[in-house]
Amino acid sequence: MFLTRSEYDRGVNTFSPEGRIFQVEYAIEAIKLGSTVIGICTSEGVVLVVEKRITSPLMEPSTIEKIAEVDKHIGVACSGLTADSKTLIDRARLESQNHWFTYNEKMSVESVSQAVSNLAIKFGDSDDDEGAMSRPFGVALLFAGCDEKGPQLYHMDPSGTYVQYDAKAIGSGSEGAQQTLVEMYNKTMTLKEATKTSLTILKQVMEEKLNSTNVEVAVVTPTARFHMFSKEEVEEAIKDVA
Amino acid sequence: MFLTRSEYDRGVNTFSPEGRIFQVEYAIEAIKLGSTVIGICTSEGVVLVVEKRITSPLMEPSTIEKIAEVDKHIGVACSGLTADSKTLIDRARLESQNHWFTYNEKMSVESVSQAVSNLAIKFGDSDDDEGAMSRPFGVALLFAGCDEKGPQLYHMDPSGTYVQYDAKAIGSGSEGAQQTLVEMYNKTMTLKEATKTSLTILKQVMEEKLNSTNVEVAVVTPTARFHMFSKEEVEEAIKDVA
Amino acid sequence: MFLTRSEYDRGVNTFSPEGRIFQVEYAIEAIKLGSTVIGICTSEGVVLVVEKRITSPLMEPSTIEKIAEVDKHIGVACSGLTADSKTLIDRARLESQNHWFTYNEKMSVESVSQAVSNLAIKFGDSDDDEGAMSRPFGVALLFAGCDEKGPQLYHMDPSGTYVQYDAKAIGSGSEGAQQTLVEMYNKTMTLKEATKTSLTILKQVMEEKLNSTNVEVAVVTPTARFHMFSKEEVEEAIKDVA
Amino acid sequence: MFLTRSEYDRGVNTFSPEGRIFQVEYAIEAIKLGSTVIGICTSEGVVLVVEKRITSPLMEPSTIEKIAEVDKHIGVACSGLTADSKTLIDRARLESQNHWFTYNEKMSVESVSQAVSNLAIKFGDSDDDEGAMSRPFGVALLFAGCDEKGPQLYHMDPSGTYVQYDAKAIGSGSEGAQQTLVEMYNKTMTLKEATKTSLTILKQVMEEKLNSTNVEVAVVTPTARFHMFSKEEVEEAIKDVA
Amino acid sequence: MFLTRSEYDRGVNTFSPEGRIFQVEYAIEAIKLGSTVIGICTSEGVVLVVEKRITSPLMEPSTIEKIAEVDKHIGVACSGLTADSKTLIDRARLESQNHWFTYNEKMSVESVSQAVSNLAIKFGDSDDDEGAMSRPFGVALLFAGCDEKGPQLYHMDPSGTYVQYDAKAIGSGSEGAQQTLVEMYNKTMTLKEATKTSLTILKQVMEEKLNSTNVEVAVVTPTARFHMFSKEEVEEAIKDVA
Amino acid sequence: MFLTRSEYDRGVNTFSPEGRIFQVEYAIEAIKLGSTVIGICTSEGVVLVVEKRITSPLMEPSTIEKIAEVDKHIGVACSGLTADSKTLIDRARLESQNHWFTYNEKMSVESVSQAVSNLAIKFGDSDDDEGAMSRPFGVALLFAGCDEKGPQLYHMDPSGTYVQYDAKAIGSGSEGAQQTLVEMYNKTMTLKEATKTSLTILKQVMEEKLNSTNVEVAVVTPTARFHMFSKEEVEEAIKDVA
Amino acid sequence: MFLTRSEYDRGVNTFSPEGRIFQVEYAIEAIKLGSTVIGICTSEGVVLVVEKRITSPLMEPSTIEKIAEVDKHIGVACSGLTADSKTLIDRARLESQNHWFTYNEKMSVESVSQAVSNLAIKFGDSDDDEGAMSRPFGVALLFAGCDEKGPQLYHMDPSGTYVQYDAKAIGSGSEGAQQTLVEMYNKTMTLKEATKTSLTILKQVMEEKLNSTNVEVAVVTPTARFHMFSKEEVEEAIKDVA
Repeated sequence: MFLTRSEYDRGVNTFSPEGRIFQVEYAIEAIKLGSTVIGICTSEGVVLVVEKRITSPLMEPSTIEKIAEVDKHIGVACSGLTADSKTLIDRARLESQNHWFTYNEKMSVESVSQAVSNLAIKFGDSDDDEGAMSRPFGVALLFAGCDEKGPQLYHMDPSGTYVQYDAKAIGSGSEGAQQTLVEMYNKTMTLKEATKTSLTILKQVMEEKLNSTNVEVAVVTPTARFHMFSKEEVEEAIKDVA
Repeated sequence: MFLTRSEYDRGVNTFSPEGRIFQVEYAIEAIKLGSTVIGICTSEGVVLVVEKRITSPLMEPSTIEKIAEVDKHIGVACSGLTADSKTLIDRARLESQNHWFTYNEKMSVESVSQAVSNLAIKFGDSDDDEGAMSRPFGVALLFAGCDEKGPQLYHMDPSGTYVQYDAKAIGSGSEGAQQTLVEMYNKTMTLKEATKTSLTILKQVMEEKLNSTNVEVAVVTPTARFHMFSKEEVEEAIKDVA
Repeated sequence: MFLTRSEYDRGVNTFSPEGRIFQVEYAIEAIKLGSTVIGICTSEGVVLVVEKRITSPLMEPSTIEKIAEVDKHIGVACSGLTADSKTLIDRARLESQNHWFTYNEKMSVESVSQAVSNLAIKFGDSDDDEGAMSRPFGVALLFAGCDEKGPQLYHMDPSGTYVQYDAKAIGSGSEGAQQTLVEMYNKTMTLKEATKTSLTILKQVMEEKLNSTNVEVAVVTPTARFHMFSKEEVEEAIKDVA
Repeated sequence: MFLTRSEYDRGVNTFSPEGRIFQVEYAIEAIKLGSTVIGICTSEGVVLVVEKRITSPLMEPSTIEKIAEVDKHIGVACSGLTADSKTLIDRARLESQNHWFTYNEKMSVESVSQAVSNLAIKFGDSDDDEGAMSRPFGVALLFAGCDEKGPQLYHMDPSGTYVQYDAKAIGSGSEGAQQTLVEMYNKTMTLKEATKTSLTILKQVMEEKLNSTNVEVAVVTPTARFHMFSKEEVEEAIKDVA
Repeated sequence: MFLTRSEYDRGVNTFSPEGRIFQVEYAIEAIKLGSTVIGICTSEGVVLVVEKRITSPLMEPSTIEKIAEVDKHIGVACSGLTADSKTLIDRARLESQNHWFTYNEKMSVESVSQAVSNLAIKFGDSDDDEGAMSRPFGVALLFAGCDEKGPQLYHMDPSGTYVQYDAKAIGSGSEGAQQTLVEMYNKTMTLKEATKTSLTILKQVMEEKLNSTNVEVAVVTPTARFHMFSKEEVEEAIKDVA
Repeated sequence: MFLTRSEYDRGVNTFSPEGRIFQVEYAIEAIKLGSTVIGICTSEGVVLVVEKRITSPLMEPSTIEKIAEVDKHIGVACSGLTADSKTLIDRARLESQNHWFTYNEKMSVESVSQAVSNLAIKFGDSDDDEGAMSRPFGVALLFAGCDEKGPQLYHMDPSGTYVQYDAKAIGSGSEGAQQTLVEMYNKTMTLKEATKTSLTILKQVMEEKLNSTNVEVAVVTPTARFHMFSKEEVEEAIKDVA
Repeated sequence: MFLTRSEYDRGVNTFSPEGRIFQVEYAIEAIKLGSTVIGICTSEGVVLVVEKRITSPLMEPSTIEKIAEVDKHIGVACSGLTADSKTLIDRARLESQNHWFTYNEKMSVESVSQAVSNLAIKFGDSDDDEGAMSRPFGVALLFAGCDEKGPQLYHMDPSGTYVQYDAKAIGSGSEGAQQTLVEMYNKTMTLKEATKTSLTILKQVMEEKLNSTNVEVAVVTPTARFHMFSKEEVEEAIKDVA
């Protein structure tokens, strides 16, 4: 009676008879090809740990930034299509700055997530929004920040849905990583323990040995705010794991 | 003579030979994949009860809000595509505030429903309305509010049709829930009884045990207005049911 | 030589080799799925009678209004896609008010019909008219009013064609109803007789028993203007029929 | 070598290999489904005679106007899609009024025809002209008027081509009617004879008996200008024919 | 390896693998269905001769003008889609007038041809030019004029290409007519001889006998400028031929 | 695995799996159907030689200009679709004039080539540039000029790529002509020798005998600037060749 | 279950079920047909070496510039579609100049890369950005520059992704060249050694013998800034290699 599934999956924004929008589901598949990203939220702050794929020894690893600062109190890690993530991060930064100028207060992590979600769901709508695309964004994001509610970790997928997590893994190794996170996470972890835990899990899903080149670590704490680990700090943290 | 049904169901806004618009019907299917939502209207006020799907124990349940405040006197619960519902709720809030500024009076629940319906039926029409989409919205809403006509419950589906109900269930468990509602509802229920009834029905259609994490409850009363139940209030209400 | 009929029927605005526009014909089919509506014009005034489909006992019948006031001297009843009818009724109200402000006189029933027709035929034309759609409207309307020419009843179908009638039935039961109207109508009917006649015919085509919940009645008279029957008046009128 | 004819006939504005535009040809077919219209031009004035299709005895025949006044000195009769003709007639009226205001003189019948033709050929061109459509207009027109060159009759078809005629028939009965016109027409006819002739021919192609309900007659004379026959005048004229 | 030819011929503006644009070639075919038009340029002036197709004896031949005045010193004859030619002639007139107002001198025949060509090649480009179409114009033109370079004859086809000719035939009889023109034309012809020659050739390709109704003649001379032959002049000229 | 080549060649601007854009390649084919054009650059100046196709003896050869003046110091010869070349030449002229008004200096031949290239690559992009088309331009150009760097010859193809050449042939006879150019060209040629060489080569690839009607010659020298050969000069030059 | 791969690869911006965007991948293929380009970054500066394809001995090699100056401190080498690269280089220059005027400081190499990337990812989005295209750009770029961070080499591919490299090869010979680069590169290379190395590698992948005509060399140093090698310098450098 119905056409086979595949007949409905090329319209950018078309429901299938079961009420599904396949292009968004396919964009979510794009994330499964991306780098593994792990985030853990503790009462002391949030840690983000990212696998960097060094496809050539001549590549300068520091420029494949998978973690970026949105504002002094918020960082973001991404997995999926690199160029797409730039657009979303730019939007996050812009919204955060506008918030500051307009209200003279830090934008909450949730509000930043919502602002980026607003852009993400507008695909296929021409002219509505500067930055909107003709397809869903092929990128998932982990927003880590400290606002008035304390440390917070938010996950956003290509459908624009964002949810707060205690700990979350995305990217190619996310399935195994998430399971281990459930086993290892507890609410009383220190930020240091969380960092160790996330690196331990990343180690399990990565094929290569961890080093200061193929791993990126960042923390957001209420006092020190967003802090990207230096080469030395990453090595120190990895030593802890081995 | 005619093409098979499936030939007509991908045009976003095309009549089939029998006069049907399939994309809207498919969007309605999307609701059947969503969380179960139950609303009951009593003379004392309206109660909204929602199932929350916790797909990971590390998810922060409070951020998967399925119930939102539109204005002090109106709340809304939604089932279907989360990101779509944000757009509709934003429109509801905007219209309600504009009404207040323009007429210096509370917007009626019916007017809010109509304003959101206006946005919902404009899909496929480019540029007509900021917020309009290139497909029908994949979300159903229950508006609960107290205006000059007293407590009121409105249901709106993806076709933009809105109708007032005494009690209404939407989402994946709606079929069974609605039947039970018909059996259990009576006009003289107190708000407390309605809350118990709706939780009892939700319990029947949910696979998991009810707890303060996977259930959201809100009431709108003429005096206390929109009130979201705290974790403790939800637990108290569930105890009543068990 | 020609393609089969079905090859021409998906272009919103395409002629078939025989000179037909199928999408408009399919929209007309959508009316045949709608509620039955009957209108009778007498020298004393016009009566509109509508079947309301109560799909759930918890539905508030008063909100499924199938009859609406356009202006003090004009009412309209509709059958077909509910959300579409709202747009057309809004246009009718707007045009009628504008007419009043511009010319300081009541807009005639024919002019209101023409104004709505102007909107209806513009489907598929982007940007031409605020409110225009990318498909034909899936709704038929009966305009009932009293202007300088006396009581008048106009019918408009999805092609935008409007014609004056003495008595007209639309919707799922229209075929049988129209035949009976031809037999029972006469020019000298009183408004009361017309009301009885229309309810008698509606009774024949509806599966359920008539009551004040599933039937809506409105009259437009030169003196009392548009008047929607109260629950009691409807019951009174039905008693007459039984 | 070529695709069959049918492959070229759905593009609104596409040449076939033989240099034909099928959508325009199909629109011309739509006229062959329309009412029969006959116009005759004499030295005393022009007469228009139209068949009205009364599909229900409850229809008010006066509202299915097939003949309309464009200006005091020009009338128009149409066959084909009713709603389309309204747009073209509105354009004719607008242009005629603008001409008057701009040049302080009556617009010639030829100029009115050209103005309407300009609108008709613009189909498929978005935004070029308010009133332009995404398909050809499915209507043919006979303009009858008296300007400085005396009484004149112009015919315009859906391709926008307009030509002056001494006598012309359009619509479903046009083939037979035109042949008879050729036989019966002569330059020295009085307007009265022309009226009789056109009604005689209409009688031959209509299935029903002529009466004041299913026939419309109008004349345009240099002195009396556009004049629509009253019920009595129509009956008088028919009597002449029988 | 390639698709068959027919796969490339429906895109309005698409190259085939051999570098051809079929829609333009098909538009050129449309001219071959049109009236035969002949133009001859002599040192005394230019003559245009056109076949008029009288499909009904009741048609007013004077209104099927195939020859039109562009400016006092330029005339144009067209073959193909009548309604299309109006748009091109309007453009020619407008450009010629603008030239006069801007430069206070007569526009040259070549410049007029180029201005019309500019419009003709813009098909398929939306919004670029008022008057541009979504398909090529289905019309060929012969511009005849007398400017500073003396009498001149230009031919323009649907591709927008224009070339100066001593003598040129277009339309359904053009193939035979052009051959005869080559045989009969010489540079020292008087305008009268040219008129006779063109009518003689037209006579050969037309099925009917020449008369003042089915033939149009116009000349453009340096002194008398554009001059359309009256009925009597045409008859006089034809007498010469017989 | 892949679709056959032909599936990718109709999208105006679509990459095939091997990274090719077929519509541009097909446009390049259009040039191979065009007239042969030869250009040679010497230290004394640049010569352009063009075949003119006289399809009828009644055609005025002087109006099929294949060589045009862009500015006093730059000429251009073109092969391919005539109407397309007009648009590109107009652009070249406009840019050259603007350059003069803005910088008070002659535009370099390279800059003119780049300006025209900018227009050529914008096909398929609506509204970006006045003059841009919905398909690639089907024309190749040879720009010949003398600027501060001395005499220069540039070639531009439909992809918008432009390259400087010592000598270059385009059009239907280009393959053989280019080979001969390689053999015969040397840096120390005088302009006269270059003219003779190019005519000799043109003679080889043309089917007809060279004469002042079917050949166009132009030179650009630092002193005499752009100079189109008169009929006599062409005949003189041809005599040299025979 | 799924359609074969080829069904998803023609939509400019469509995800396949595995989350891939084929048009971007095909654009990357276009680079593999382009000239080989090699860049090496040393502490003394950056060298760019490019193969020039001389398809005809009459081509002026200096005009097929594959290396261009963006600003005094930044150069860029490109491989792929020549005309596309012009647009991207223009954007780079514009952004660099704007940066200077706005901030009164040199734009960093990374910022230039990002600015160009912003343009590259916007394909398929109409009107968003002047210069954006309806398909991905078919070009890869190597940005070489010296900013506050010292000498830097960035690579950008058609997806808009840009990454810093110590040494990078693109184009048809890139696979072999990159492997050799890995073997031969070391951080302590002098700029002279780097130039020799890159020419040595280019020699291996090119079919022809290196000479000052088919090779382009440029260096960017902190002091001398962007410097294009003269014919003599190139020959000098090649001598070194042989």
